Amino acid sequence: MEKIEHIGIAVNSIEQAGNVYQKLLNTVIYKTEEVASEGVNTAFLQAGPNKIELLEATNPDSPIAKFLAKKGEGIHHIAFEVTDIRAEMLRLKSEGFVLLNEEPKPGADGKLVCFVHPKGVNGVLVELCESLVISH
Amino acid sequence: MEKIEHIGIAVNSIEQAGNVYQKLLNTVIYKTEEVASEGVNTAFLQAGPNKIELLEATNPDSPIAKFLAKKGEGIHHIAFEVTDIRAEMLRLKSEGFVLLNEEPKPGADGKLVCFVHPKGVNGVLVELCESLVISH
Repeated sequence: MEKIEHIGIAVNSIEQAGNVYQKLLNTVIYKTEEVASEGVNTAFLQAGPNKIELLEATNPDSPIAKFLAKKGEGIHHIAFEVTDIRAEMLRLKSEGFVLLNEEPKPGADGKLVCFVHPKGVNGVLVELCESLVISH
Repeated sequence: MEKIEHIGIAVNSIEQAGNVYQKLLNTVIYKTEEVASEGVNTAFLQAGPNKIELLEATNPDSPIAKFLAKKGEGIHHIAFEVTDIRAEMLRLKSEGFVLLNEEPKPGADGKLVCFVHPKGVNGVLVELCESLVISH
């Protein structure tokens, strides 16, 4: 894993949380993006080599809506940058981790992503992501 | 904020979780440390410029023991590296954030640290940390 690419934080309102995190990190949201396939709006802020991704549900059946209903606002996942997502997926499967998607899928921010089941990672939802484009 | 310095993860057993995270990150634990004042054992793994800090309670009254009892294993906090923790504490207070300690205190890994109340940060416990020594 090259680094923590981003931390995903589930929030009720990107507008409200965006203001908070802009103050916290003393920076501005550099990008917002809807990921319709996941039922979320996203907003990104930079912290040096890392990012914070704010996640707001766009429909009540989305994973983020369910997370918010169950746990409330808070950290949703850690995403690690990898250079070859397919190789890393094979390596993790061989180590006994359970992948939530068998093929890499398109995520926010021009990435190919794969999620690892939190039950095998001490309750932490882990995302692998490989950049498809030059990232911010 | 310079970067995400580390993500703190509350676990029931550092021995068990250490094995999992060494496999996940394809690396080894480079340091373990007891922070008696916080009632925790810690173990650190590197992911590029960032770290994962595993946290195991050493007594039932520690914040980590209470977190585990209430929420189970999972992400406990995000720590951001700052160059001048006192300046950053003043800035955040002026922005309306609530600090959990008024003076920086010694944390794991040779840091001065300060925690920010999660209620003002959309449910996320934020730690500021300033290095006192050359870090790993």
